[in-house]
Amino acid sequence: MEQIKTFLDESEIPRQWYNVMADLPTPMKPPLHPGTGQPIKPEDMAAIFPMNIIEQEASTQRWIDIPEEVLQKYLLWRPSPLYRARNFEKLLGCPVKIYYKNEGVSPAGSHKPNAAIPMAYYNKVAGTKRITTETGAGQWGSALSMACQMFGLPCRVYMVRISYDQKPYRRMMMNTWGAECLASPTNLTQVGRNVLAEHPDSPGSLGIAISEAIEDAVTTPNTKYALGSVLNHVLLYQSIIGLEAKKQMDKLGIYPDIVMGCCGGGSNFAGLALPYVADLFTGKKVKIVGAEPTSCPTMTKGPFAYDFGDLAKSTPLLPMYTLGHDYIPAPIHAGGLRYHGMAPIISHLVRESFIEPRAYDQMKTFEAGIKWARSEGFIPAPETNHVIAAVVDEAMRAKEEGKEKVILFNWSGHGLVDLSAYDAYLSGKLQAYELPDEEIEKALLAIKDFPKP
Amino acid sequence: MEQIKTFLDESEIPRQWYNVMADLPTPMKPPLHPGTGQPIKPEDMAAIFPMNIIEQEASTQRWIDIPEEVLQKYLLWRPSPLYRARNFEKLLGCPVKIYYKNEGVSPAGSHKPNAAIPMAYYNKVAGTKRITTETGAGQWGSALSMACQMFGLPCRVYMVRISYDQKPYRRMMMNTWGAECLASPTNLTQVGRNVLAEHPDSPGSLGIAISEAIEDAVTTPNTKYALGSVLNHVLLYQSIIGLEAKKQMDKLGIYPDIVMGCCGGGSNFAGLALPYVADLFTGKKVKIVGAEPTSCPTMTKGPFAYDFGDLAKSTPLLPMYTLGHDYIPAPIHAGGLRYHGMAPIISHLVRESFIEPRAYDQMKTFEAGIKWARSEGFIPAPETNHVIAAVVDEAMRAKEEGKEKVILFNWSGHGLVDLSAYDAYLSGKLQAYELPDEEIEKALLAIKDFPKP
Repeated sequence: MEQIKTFLDESEIPRQWYNVMADLPTPMKPPLHPGTGQPIKPEDMAAIFPMNIIEQEASTQRWIDIPEEVLQKYLLWRPSPLYRARNFEKLLGCPVKIYYKNEGVSPAGSHKPNAAIPMAYYNKVAGTKRITTETGAGQWGSALSMACQMFGLPCRVYMVRISYDQKPYRRMMMNTWGAECLASPTNLTQVGRNVLAEHPDSPGSLGIAISEAIEDAVTTPNTKYALGSVLNHVLLYQSIIGLEAKKQMDKLGIYPDIVMGCCGGGSNFAGLALPYVADLFTGKKVKIVGAEPTSCPTMTKGPFAYDFGDLAKSTPLLPMYTLGHDYIPAPIHAGGLRYHGMAPIISHLVRESFIEPRAYDQMKTFEAGIKWARSEGFIPAPETNHVIAAVVDEAMRAKEEGKEKVILFNWSGHGLVDLSAYDAYLSGKLQAYELPDEEIEKALLAIKDFPKP
Repeated sequence: MEQIKTFLDESEIPRQWYNVMADLPTPMKPPLHPGTGQPIKPEDMAAIFPMNIIEQEASTQRWIDIPEEVLQKYLLWRPSPLYRARNFEKLLGCPVKIYYKNEGVSPAGSHKPNAAIPMAYYNKVAGTKRITTETGAGQWGSALSMACQMFGLPCRVYMVRISYDQKPYRRMMMNTWGAECLASPTNLTQVGRNVLAEHPDSPGSLGIAISEAIEDAVTTPNTKYALGSVLNHVLLYQSIIGLEAKKQMDKLGIYPDIVMGCCGGGSNFAGLALPYVADLFTGKKVKIVGAEPTSCPTMTKGPFAYDFGDLAKSTPLLPMYTLGHDYIPAPIHAGGLRYHGMAPIISHLVRESFIEPRAYDQMKTFEAGIKWARSEGFIPAPETNHVIAAVVDEAMRAKEEGKEKVILFNWSGHGLVDLSAYDAYLSGKLQAYELPDEEIEKALLAIKDFPKP
């Protein structure tokens, strides 16, 4: 029989996360305090995050120990299986071997718990008594709800109202795991009340929800905020994906030619890719490709600039590819990719040409996702369909070039709670979104007076 | 670190299914032809099933080879992991070790593909060009849709209208896997037209849907019908669960004191339990417990009798525990357990005291399921919550008795496509259903004139 899955024993789970900050050949620009224009200091973030997480955010230590309590929770689903997509390969008929990390095996169905578990843990040991966060489609909010429940921390999630109404299942997941999930804007925060006073029927936005969650955290005793992507410590926690993948590929005696992932804020892509980027620094050859939506073409069309992480300007100024902090991406079904910016680490590596960005419109991604589901069985998340579309492209290129290639990608999650997106696609209700260049220029007005990196 | 999961290598997957028919200490009563009252012959079923499946239905061969093509599809998710529920154990604080087979790792999220894959395969090799089936909540319909897609067979699923309207996600899964899913009753069959003529707004029933699927199969060239539970061949295919579990428990050097599963038609329970029932026949000691809902207490309150498998009397008369073929169970959320009868093999083993049945009301099952989700992470299907409630009972009993016990149960599937059930429970909209004895007597009028087993 043809082998499909490669597992690691539980005893082989990586005991340390990998921090790419230790190995960057060129230094990154620092985040800036928006008031002073100076690099931020740890105490600037102390109202939002606990100090142990702030230290990791700024750390340049290469290997960081994974606490025993975190490992024990990881083991509920990790090490995740490395799959070979033999049926999809046969369907494509190209000279490629396609391997993927199946992050859909987690209880929440995505990679998000990899970061949620350590965040809940570090908050717990730092004395935090309650955590707030925001969520769009709900992947992050549900993962954090589970993690907080496991460490006995109450959790409140501000969920963008339009998603709250349209995607009730992830709200129900959060409740099942004991968290409170509110449709944002709420009347519980000043930000929320201001929005509602002007727009009583506001559908909400990720920007508003972040602002509400941060306001809640800074105005409530013993409460901290948690962010599910973009920041260095989130990418650090996700590195477990790539570290496991390397051990699994080693067992097979194979090194990939191409490593790929889909990119929203950058965390799942970074999780798989950064341990391979480290190999690039030492002269190894591997192509690293990040796939984003054409409706939100941050890396492929945005400038590298200082910008806020959120609409309400609550964050430091981050050096990143951005479409402007007030850019509202088109309502594509891959909610996890609808973010105006890109993780500073990923942005830096794109700028330094270690990572190749690509953009795909949602029609092409669902076409690829349906092919996947009908050959491999597992139904991918709409976000994941973006990298599958990119895998198809790379496979076709290998065929044209007549070269054999090994592709490794991150299958970031399953789509069982996103089936309405497939339904819309199959019933002809979806459309492609391509952002015209003049729209991008308009979007970027918001950042024209910021410091330049 | 404490070990949680036990895997088998792909090379260790069982190569044969186990057929308990070879080992029964006392013979089972045969299914009867309803017209003649005589035991049915293979040709009586030839209009519905292909001959290779009919042969397996009647087989008394102990081990039946799993075809290579079926094994290769099984490997997409099998061998499924054996988990130890350490967090749930700690929560209960009882002297038990709790192991479970996680059948939620399949692409459809349940054990159903274990039977759907071989059914699609055997139909394919027998020359079937199209398959029909019925589905209630949609677990079986979605699993068969995936399996048919994998073997290139068009599939039509008649889905009970009320579920079709209330549970759109499983319909969307079927479409994503390329199947046609219709709300039953339809106007495409005589049965459906008759129902609609009398009740244009009929919410449908499993009985009507089975009758439509069978009528479609027998009136369309090269079309066969597939059933997802109850029959001997379905239980045979599911035996892969228990055979894997035994190998995994052997690796741990542990033999269970109690083996448990939830029971609707009986297939997931049988899958885990029958390889252990075989040990009972050779004198080994193990308690086998099946958990059913109090709203549909087939084994605990129904008589052992000859009855039809469906409302429209399309099937042979089966010797089983039954509440009468026209019994409509209360609308509990565990749709997979809302079946009036019980697999003849399981019924026989209950009657012969090899299996102990228990009944749980849905309030108690959701209470157990929420505890599970909040400690173990994975959200169980509403059906699975029934066996978890039974596990809690057994754990408490062990505590009272001051005895250490090892429990092994079948975690038949996850609940990510059933979250509305959790939502209803958490918002106080669910109620307990206990069937009064006089209602059972009323229900059984339907079978009073049938032959007695």
